[in-house]
Amino acid sequence: MGDLQMFESFSVKSSVSGSYTVNFVENIDNCLLEIASKGDAFFIVDNNVELLYELSKKEQINRDKIIPVISSEQNKTIEYIQEVLRDLISKGIRKDSVLIAIGGGITQDIVAFISTILYRGVEWKFIPTTLLAQGDSCIGSKSSINFDLYKNLLGTFNPPSAIYIYMEFLDSLSDSEIKSGIGEMLHYFLTEGIELAQSISDNYENLLRNRSGLSYYVNNSLRIKKEIIEVDEFDKSIRHIFNYGHTFGHAIEAITNYSIPHGQAITIGMDLANYISLHLDMLTIDKFNKMHNILQKNIPAFKIDASNIELYCSALSRDKKNKGNLLGCILTRGAGKVEKVFLEIDDILRELIIQYFIKYAH
Amino acid sequence: MGDLQMFESFSVKSSVSGSYTVNFVENIDNCLLEIASKGDAFFIVDNNVELLYELSKKEQINRDKIIPVISSEQNKTIEYIQEVLRDLISKGIRKDSVLIAIGGGITQDIVAFISTILYRGVEWKFIPTTLLAQGDSCIGSKSSINFDLYKNLLGTFNPPSAIYIYMEFLDSLSDSEIKSGIGEMLHYFLTEGIELAQSISDNYENLLRNRSGLSYYVNNSLRIKKEIIEVDEFDKSIRHIFNYGHTFGHAIEAITNYSIPHGQAITIGMDLANYISLHLDMLTIDKFNKMHNILQKNIPAFKIDASNIELYCSALSRDKKNKGNLLGCILTRGAGKVEKVFLEIDDILRELIIQYFIKYAH
Repeated sequence: MGDLQMFESFSVKSSVSGSYTVNFVENIDNCLLEIASKGDAFFIVDNNVELLYELSKKEQINRDKIIPVISSEQNKTIEYIQEVLRDLISKGIRKDSVLIAIGGGITQDIVAFISTILYRGVEWKFIPTTLLAQGDSCIGSKSSINFDLYKNLLGTFNPPSAIYIYMEFLDSLSDSEIKSGIGEMLHYFLTEGIELAQSISDNYENLLRNRSGLSYYVNNSLRIKKEIIEVDEFDKSIRHIFNYGHTFGHAIEAITNYSIPHGQAITIGMDLANYISLHLDMLTIDKFNKMHNILQKNIPAFKIDASNIELYCSALSRDKKNKGNLLGCILTRGAGKVEKVFLEIDDILRELIIQYFIKYAH
Repeated sequence: MGDLQMFESFSVKSSVSGSYTVNFVENIDNCLLEIASKGDAFFIVDNNVELLYELSKKEQINRDKIIPVISSEQNKTIEYIQEVLRDLISKGIRKDSVLIAIGGGITQDIVAFISTILYRGVEWKFIPTTLLAQGDSCIGSKSSINFDLYKNLLGTFNPPSAIYIYMEFLDSLSDSEIKSGIGEMLHYFLTEGIELAQSISDNYENLLRNRSGLSYYVNNSLRIKKEIIEVDEFDKSIRHIFNYGHTFGHAIEAITNYSIPHGQAITIGMDLANYISLHLDMLTIDKFNKMHNILQKNIPAFKIDASNIELYCSALSRDKKNKGNLLGCILTRGAGKVEKVFLEIDDILRELIIQYFIKYAH
């Protein structure tokens, strides 16, 4: 990328595309101009991103080729994708054009999906603007699209050809968005060991104020994810460990209508998985407490009790990774020692879940 | 496939899926029962296929998992695909289910596309029932979906995991469908040499009556295609030679509203490409005549003259493989010696095209 200063760029192997690069960018203007100068670039930009305004002022960038998208969960649909496709076609998209997605995970989902199906494949690049996208979703090839009432039923494996991470985007995010990103990164850290999780927890308040410090954790989160997805890109075996916290977290999101930010629901999900591990004698109380002290900082107010346990278990029973009636989830024998387990969704599990929230809910 | 008798099965390398097999099947009932006995199979069947009725009578096949599709060009759309998706979901499709497409190229397009986007990928197998699908489209990984007024604008590269070719399906096809398939196979043959093209031409009338003889040509057509797509699956370089006859043929289809069967339009397209090659001194008149005598048997009544030449050239100018104003097409220096050439769409070309039809149109 010419004169752009970057640090710790790396590449990720993919059996879809060979490999792709992750670049840490210090000057986003130069980065955008360099992308615009190479080939026929169409910028698909989350309309919340301030950059959208900046971008439209640059004379080197053809304003006609900037397409704002409304990145709401309601727009992660085939219908909205068709609207964006029509916009691209009317603006002259060709097979050798390049799509540049700028935004968070939803913008990523929309552009990655279009990139798969348009002309049997159009190149795309990604500039993630949220901590969730920077520290997690930007690598790993997955896209997810809702269909009718089914969340993430459609999707593809199709990584971008390059990712540009610019940390200053984080400065304009809410604390809640940062906490969500931290929750997602914590789950990668705890599949590796205790150190990074302890470190991000020790610096928690400081990182919420001074976000540039997050680059160290973003880099490590992606490093841990990269090691696994290079071996199991299509999520058939070892990549399942990254469901740690997710099985229990997704069900929390489902029964709260997605009002709890994803990464924070995952944080509760990990703590709950750890509590279940403790009661299956997989984990000592010392190890549970050590992780609980880290996780609790990132846990929002939420509770499951007799009033919503059935709703919760019914959400758990619909998890994609279940086998028949058995709940497929990731438990732990300690930080860095996660393990896939199948559990019956029975009274014992119900009782454990309620107990956990009695003891630990905020 | 256990006790099924097959001949000349082979595998095709794919960078999407590793590799997939093409099997010549002698007993379609056993083949279907074996597929149904392995895993959770959903049969997506062209409602024109007589087999649909047979299939629904078999007690070993769950009737609920047979989904008829109306394989018309008008249904090769995102809207129809969503209808089929809803049907599959309501019938309990899972990530580890297998889609079995039974039909021609349109059924193939619909199922291949669904197989790419559902759950980020569901396995599919293909039982082609038309000569076009058996001798051409079943291998090569491409799917094509129309979008708004744009033909084949959307699509993916996603081969089936296995293909089962049962020649007796051809017995119920119209002569027109057989001629279409012969045209498509002729184009493969003429990229390799004169022999197979001469042979299919010599046996033309006999093959229309006695279709089992076509298996030899299907096998050879796929062999020629396999050699090229294994090198250039994504159609970036050498696979372009298979546009031979197609650039000129597609434009004929477009201006006749697809009333001329695809493979016959391609046959005219080849003869026209050869005529242009002759006048560019790429081809001797002897070689032109030799190929013309082969092709003319498969050429239907059709003519371009002063009344429709502008419409035709305007269709040519919209070809995907053009570069700017230049028509990207495949010409020939003789059977087996095709070559990519860029031509201006000018008065000289218009004149040549009209001349060709004055001399050779039926």
